[in-house]
Amino acid sequence: MTARDHASARDAEFMRMALALARRGLGRTRPNPPVGAVVVRGGRVVGSGWHRRAGTAHAEAIALAQAGSAARGATLYLTLEPCTHQGRMPPCAPQVIASGVARVVIGAIDPNPIVSRRGIAQLRRSGVAVTTGVEGEAAQELIAGFARHVVSGRPFVRLKLAASADGRIATRTGASRWITGAPARRVVHRWRNEMDAVLVGVDTVIADDPELTCRRAGGRDPVRVVVDGSLRIPARARLLHDGRAPVWIATRARHDRVRAARLERAGATILAIPSRGRHVDLGALLVALGRRDVTSVLVEAGAHLSAALIAGGHVDELCWFSAPLLIGGDGLPMIGPLGVRSLRGAFPLADLRVERVGDDLLHTARVEAR
Amino acid sequence: MTARDHASARDAEFMRMALALARRGLGRTRPNPPVGAVVVRGGRVVGSGWHRRAGTAHAEAIALAQAGSAARGATLYLTLEPCTHQGRMPPCAPQVIASGVARVVIGAIDPNPIVSRRGIAQLRRSGVAVTTGVEGEAAQELIAGFARHVVSGRPFVRLKLAASADGRIATRTGASRWITGAPARRVVHRWRNEMDAVLVGVDTVIADDPELTCRRAGGRDPVRVVVDGSLRIPARARLLHDGRAPVWIATRARHDRVRAARLERAGATILAIPSRGRHVDLGALLVALGRRDVTSVLVEAGAHLSAALIAGGHVDELCWFSAPLLIGGDGLPMIGPLGVRSLRGAFPLADLRVERVGDDLLHTARVEAR
Repeated sequence: MTARDHASARDAEFMRMALALARRGLGRTRPNPPVGAVVVRGGRVVGSGWHRRAGTAHAEAIALAQAGSAARGATLYLTLEPCTHQGRMPPCAPQVIASGVARVVIGAIDPNPIVSRRGIAQLRRSGVAVTTGVEGEAAQELIAGFARHVVSGRPFVRLKLAASADGRIATRTGASRWITGAPARRVVHRWRNEMDAVLVGVDTVIADDPELTCRRAGGRDPVRVVVDGSLRIPARARLLHDGRAPVWIATRARHDRVRAARLERAGATILAIPSRGRHVDLGALLVALGRRDVTSVLVEAGAHLSAALIAGGHVDELCWFSAPLLIGGDGLPMIGPLGVRSLRGAFPLADLRVERVGDDLLHTARVEAR
Repeated sequence: MTARDHASARDAEFMRMALALARRGLGRTRPNPPVGAVVVRGGRVVGSGWHRRAGTAHAEAIALAQAGSAARGATLYLTLEPCTHQGRMPPCAPQVIASGVARVVIGAIDPNPIVSRRGIAQLRRSGVAVTTGVEGEAAQELIAGFARHVVSGRPFVRLKLAASADGRIATRTGASRWITGAPARRVVHRWRNEMDAVLVGVDTVIADDPELTCRRAGGRDPVRVVVDGSLRIPARARLLHDGRAPVWIATRARHDRVRAARLERAGATILAIPSRGRHVDLGALLVALGRRDVTSVLVEAGAHLSAALIAGGHVDELCWFSAPLLIGGDGLPMIGPLGVRSLRGAFPLADLRVERVGDDLLHTARVEAR
């Protein structure tokens, strides 16, 4: 190992520490990104912090305050480029400069067009050394929701599916609990903890009466969004009454006002969304969620809503668990009809990764535009 | 590394050499197993060989003959325990003893009940040192067909499927060429080269008019078995006329004699198999193939024949390629109806492995009895 390799290995190590801190904010900072910061002087950590919630101090401000005068000449590890604009909090780049740090190591460039690379430029102009892209992939992944939202106004959409090896989510009689093992289900609860909202169709509520909460120690529950064009959600659905987390019911602009009022009295929020034929326009729904500061959505829907989201080009990431068993062609397919005729019309997946989760496999991929 | 580790690393290395030799016989030795042998003295290879075809010399005989007097005091690496019984060739264990080798290193124990461990016992009684299980897993895998056949009288059955990520083998209109990429198709041609027979249903012949030959340099074509209960195979099917490899048509015992005679004149062999309802009894077909010295079968059938083989418990290994694209629930499923109602009734897969083949994934698993 050369001295240079050694230095960059140390940079990566402190950045991973900052990323671990940032992760504690995942799902809690919307519409802000989760950010972590570590201040290191003479090889020792003299300050650290993470952004806890929108409207509270930014990660670098916390870490630098903790470091105090020790920040002078130190290195600041930041998972995300510091901001340059006045939001609810003062901009961070000037604070970083004022702290006297000699060097800033950055994970991800801010995707926000009003910041992007300006924070870095500001630091450099003030004589602060800047290194970028350290653990860059992990840093980008961490802010996937923020990045999608700040650029497009829509949340990042992860579609989760759990199927048999032959792509079935239930037997012919509808038996589906549980196709995957407990470790796979634990991963889903981690996602619920980290993502701003969970989205299902009303048919899933009718069939399974799910709570859609995060059953994980220290977890936080996501906003629960139910797509329900005709307000068919049962009045006794558990999620309407458990008081655990907001319930937003996305219905068509023309809907039954009496039912809507009853649901609102039960604590739900009605989102009136433009319709597309007899259904809620899913693109318009995502825009509405984005306006409500939802930066990431975990879709746990059935085959038909999943197919509609794929066909509409609304899915950023597909995560499907496949269990080591065969159900056969008379079982229910994991994705509803997509109307694909020629193979050229199929929806391509990119960046496919596979990992083992217990006895199951987890496949992750981007769904590309056709 | 201790001296012992070093010796066992060297053993593994020479065994891999013997396995590579044995593999050259794959698909060519039925009903015998492919076997490779290497004779090493003072760290140098002084003889090597592999079994080329049933009725010709065994691997150890070739390697020992090549080594001549250099075999005295040498080590013999053998992928399979030497046989002890008189077949078409003299038994090998006595020849090994007579050669004067000091030590024999063995990959797999002979699964043949009339040999199993007797070859090893005979060597040891004569003062030859024996080490077993070196590269044992690879050695076992190599003789999977032989092992299944010699024990049960039936061939080893590998079911190959190629589907989209959501388990579809074709679009709603039947478009299926090509879901997987060229590297995946090359793997299939390797299997055709190495397995004794390829099996399809007559519907595949009608739909695709396949040749089922091995398009691979130096490849050898497998026997082509068509399951055709009602002798519906088109007279002009390419595989009936290319003269590349035998065509066996498996039909019911009661079948149209005129059609059968016409197919026989075209060069095909008619196998009259007991029926099960209106279909060929697949278990009886496998027994018939076993009687004809077929030790391994690659099934390249459609969804329905694949389902019938799975449902009948006839599949030893499932190998499915999954391509990075989505076709949707209106595409054709990779496996036909299995009649599974509860998840407990699903067919479990064991020893699941995943590897990348080009852009596709290849999943390999054992199909377990329910």
